[in-house]
Amino acid sequence: MELDNDQQLENAVHELSNLITTGQDDLFMNQFTSLHDFEKAQVYAELPAAIREVAWRIMDDETLATVFDNLEIDPEEIVSLLQEMPMQKGADILVAMFADNEADLLQAMPARTVSAYLALMPADEVKEIKQLINYDDETAGSLMATEYLAVKQSEKIKDVLVQVKKQAEEAESIIYVYVVDDEHRLIGVVSLRDLLTHPDEMTIDSITNTRVISVKAENDQKDVAQVVADYNFFSIPVTDDEDHLLGIVTVDDIVDVIDEEAVSDYSGMAAVDVSDTDDTAWHSAVKRIPWLLTLLVLGLASTALVGIFEHTIREAPILAAFITIIAGTAGNAGTQSLALAVRHFGNGQDQSGWRNLVSEFISAFVLAIIAGVVLGVVTLLWQGNQGLALAVGLALALSILAASLLAHLVPATLNKLNIDPAIVNGPLVATVCDWASILIYFSIATGMLSQFVGK
Amino acid sequence: MELDNDQQLENAVHELSNLITTGQDDLFMNQFTSLHDFEKAQVYAELPAAIREVAWRIMDDETLATVFDNLEIDPEEIVSLLQEMPMQKGADILVAMFADNEADLLQAMPARTVSAYLALMPADEVKEIKQLINYDDETAGSLMATEYLAVKQSEKIKDVLVQVKKQAEEAESIIYVYVVDDEHRLIGVVSLRDLLTHPDEMTIDSITNTRVISVKAENDQKDVAQVVADYNFFSIPVTDDEDHLLGIVTVDDIVDVIDEEAVSDYSGMAAVDVSDTDDTAWHSAVKRIPWLLTLLVLGLASTALVGIFEHTIREAPILAAFITIIAGTAGNAGTQSLALAVRHFGNGQDQSGWRNLVSEFISAFVLAIIAGVVLGVVTLLWQGNQGLALAVGLALALSILAASLLAHLVPATLNKLNIDPAIVNGPLVATVCDWASILIYFSIATGMLSQFVGK
Repeated sequence: MELDNDQQLENAVHELSNLITTGQDDLFMNQFTSLHDFEKAQVYAELPAAIREVAWRIMDDETLATVFDNLEIDPEEIVSLLQEMPMQKGADILVAMFADNEADLLQAMPARTVSAYLALMPADEVKEIKQLINYDDETAGSLMATEYLAVKQSEKIKDVLVQVKKQAEEAESIIYVYVVDDEHRLIGVVSLRDLLTHPDEMTIDSITNTRVISVKAENDQKDVAQVVADYNFFSIPVTDDEDHLLGIVTVDDIVDVIDEEAVSDYSGMAAVDVSDTDDTAWHSAVKRIPWLLTLLVLGLASTALVGIFEHTIREAPILAAFITIIAGTAGNAGTQSLALAVRHFGNGQDQSGWRNLVSEFISAFVLAIIAGVVLGVVTLLWQGNQGLALAVGLALALSILAASLLAHLVPATLNKLNIDPAIVNGPLVATVCDWASILIYFSIATGMLSQFVGK
Repeated sequence: MELDNDQQLENAVHELSNLITTGQDDLFMNQFTSLHDFEKAQVYAELPAAIREVAWRIMDDETLATVFDNLEIDPEEIVSLLQEMPMQKGADILVAMFADNEADLLQAMPARTVSAYLALMPADEVKEIKQLINYDDETAGSLMATEYLAVKQSEKIKDVLVQVKKQAEEAESIIYVYVVDDEHRLIGVVSLRDLLTHPDEMTIDSITNTRVISVKAENDQKDVAQVVADYNFFSIPVTDDEDHLLGIVTVDDIVDVIDEEAVSDYSGMAAVDVSDTDDTAWHSAVKRIPWLLTLLVLGLASTALVGIFEHTIREAPILAAFITIIAGTAGNAGTQSLALAVRHFGNGQDQSGWRNLVSEFISAFVLAIIAGVVLGVVTLLWQGNQGLALAVGLALALSILAASLLAHLVPATLNKLNIDPAIVNGPLVATVCDWASILIYFSIATGMLSQFVGK
């Protein structure tokens, strides 16, 4: 039984529900426990509410914590599943969960609910979780688990292995064992592989790698993901500014981060949130409407701009034929530049921003000349009007230059204002490029009107 | 020393080069070996060619294999680094590399070079690698490593641990031990965690999970990534159609796949390859020019279409003012639909294609009505012309509907023709939407001309 499609999930849910309905609780627990952790979570969320009312009563806190650790739905939905249980049971499950997931859930609750749950937890747990909640969203601190294995230097391999075995159930990852000094400052890392392949009586010092790569709790999750992806780590330690070990970020969280960041960049480029494909048509429409209407209103400025030049169009109606190609090509060039800019800032390489801007301009300049010449020649062949050909070619070239400039300056400016450039999505930049190219085009056309009207 | 920026990398390269230049080969090897694997690769690629000529001579095959396993540059560049060494040395390094990376390199070579290298390898290695090379790009087979740990059922935990220790150096991942039958068919999986936390004298049977999730060698890498991301696995076994265990895909490869797929979808949306930000301005321009010119040529069709209606524009020049807003809004709606469609097909959920198409249409319909009414009302207030307001509002609504249809039908059709919908990038769909909306707009305007001209 693999729950890799909706039908199989539905069958499993149906089968398990039947076991509860017919009072075969033990068989239910047997089958449920044999599922993979991810599947337990899928099934639990899909059970009818009345069945869940029984299910959480017959499960121990550890099993329920596994379910809640593995739910991949909106935090708000997870919270409402948790609130199906009495407060104390909910608090016990939160305590049994991995600290990073627990913190995520608490962050999705109203302040009053958080206080209520915290009041029901042991004091040391409250202290720890309060620290985690304080880390900004999308930082290493908000991603890290506090369940890791740390030992002191000079311990014997066999003693470390005893600790590994003892903590294996609890720690999120036992692939690395971290070595700390008396003040819990991170000084090295030992791989489980090395522990297993060296004599028991040796101390860990000779297999400790002191060139341990770590991140700071306040580091951006994108940068953490980049390091983990580059180094092919299974997990990475997180420290504070004095190198005290605070927790670890595991690769499964990194996989989610990379996916999330990519989807957010991509969604921004299309002005639509693609992260939730299960939405109903109505929700999907409702979510898209605000953006489309905003763009419509912004687009009205283009209409007003063309309206200003109504007199020019009356003189030479053929000018209208070139509006879409000039605005569209400038928009395409702008979108290309924006895509590079977003990924560029996304990589956190701001220091090379100026060098990139210069590169971008040389490249936009080449593009502008080629595109302008192509459109000019085509227009000359089609309309046989040198003045018109010159006007549209020049307008296109200048519009492409303007678009490349706008696509870079707008996100760069927002970046300085600490607004995520990803929200400067493709259609928005395309709209701004429309304004610029219409202004450029009709200014040139109006200025050169005498050169091509009546010829 | 962390090599997390260019300056630190440059310093490390400079320092290591000096050691070779001054004949301190042992010190060079000491320092080089203390680097992380990813850093070894970075440094090796950046060493001056003359220094590399010495470096590969003083490194053993294992160290060089680690370097070549961890290089994250174009396969072609890796091949040229390999070809700096004699053929036999190159062949030995290939053999010492992980099989998946070895196969990737061989696939980047001309057939003649491949034959030359294979001729210098042991026969059993050649047989194994030839199988790997045969898997299609972007499948589980092309991603998998053949270095894994498999044991027979009913073995004792202590015996398995002995094998774990023995193979730990070689296997890419020892977090899971796979259990196979006499025909090497996959029947279960044991986690290293369970091996360490259960008594040595027990057999593995009681800790073997027989509900092992695996993928087939021909499965698409996107689907493999989805399973690994959902289940939070560190690695996943790959089998053939008869369940014979062939290899494993590890999470570090999955991280690369997710990144690669997201970048490719994103690049398609903007018609620019964002995967290489280190390009020179000239290369960047050259790469963008073909797309921009293609779109320019396709855009000329819009120009010709408007040209057909030159007479209509002569009668009512104000019509020109609404070209960008109608074509632009339709393009935005089309881009949103496309983004959803690309991600949708990207998730391999084709079976629900029709349901999604219907949802999409209901949502496009709602959007179309709202946008049409808004533009109609604004136009009425601005121009005080009921006929014109009706014409532009109707044209916008119909254009949005057409755009949503086109954005879905074009990739769906290409998908049936087995062309990756990701290449139907945003600007291309926007251009097609331009054609449709111009045709719709001017047809309606021409038909209703008498209703608003002279009023």
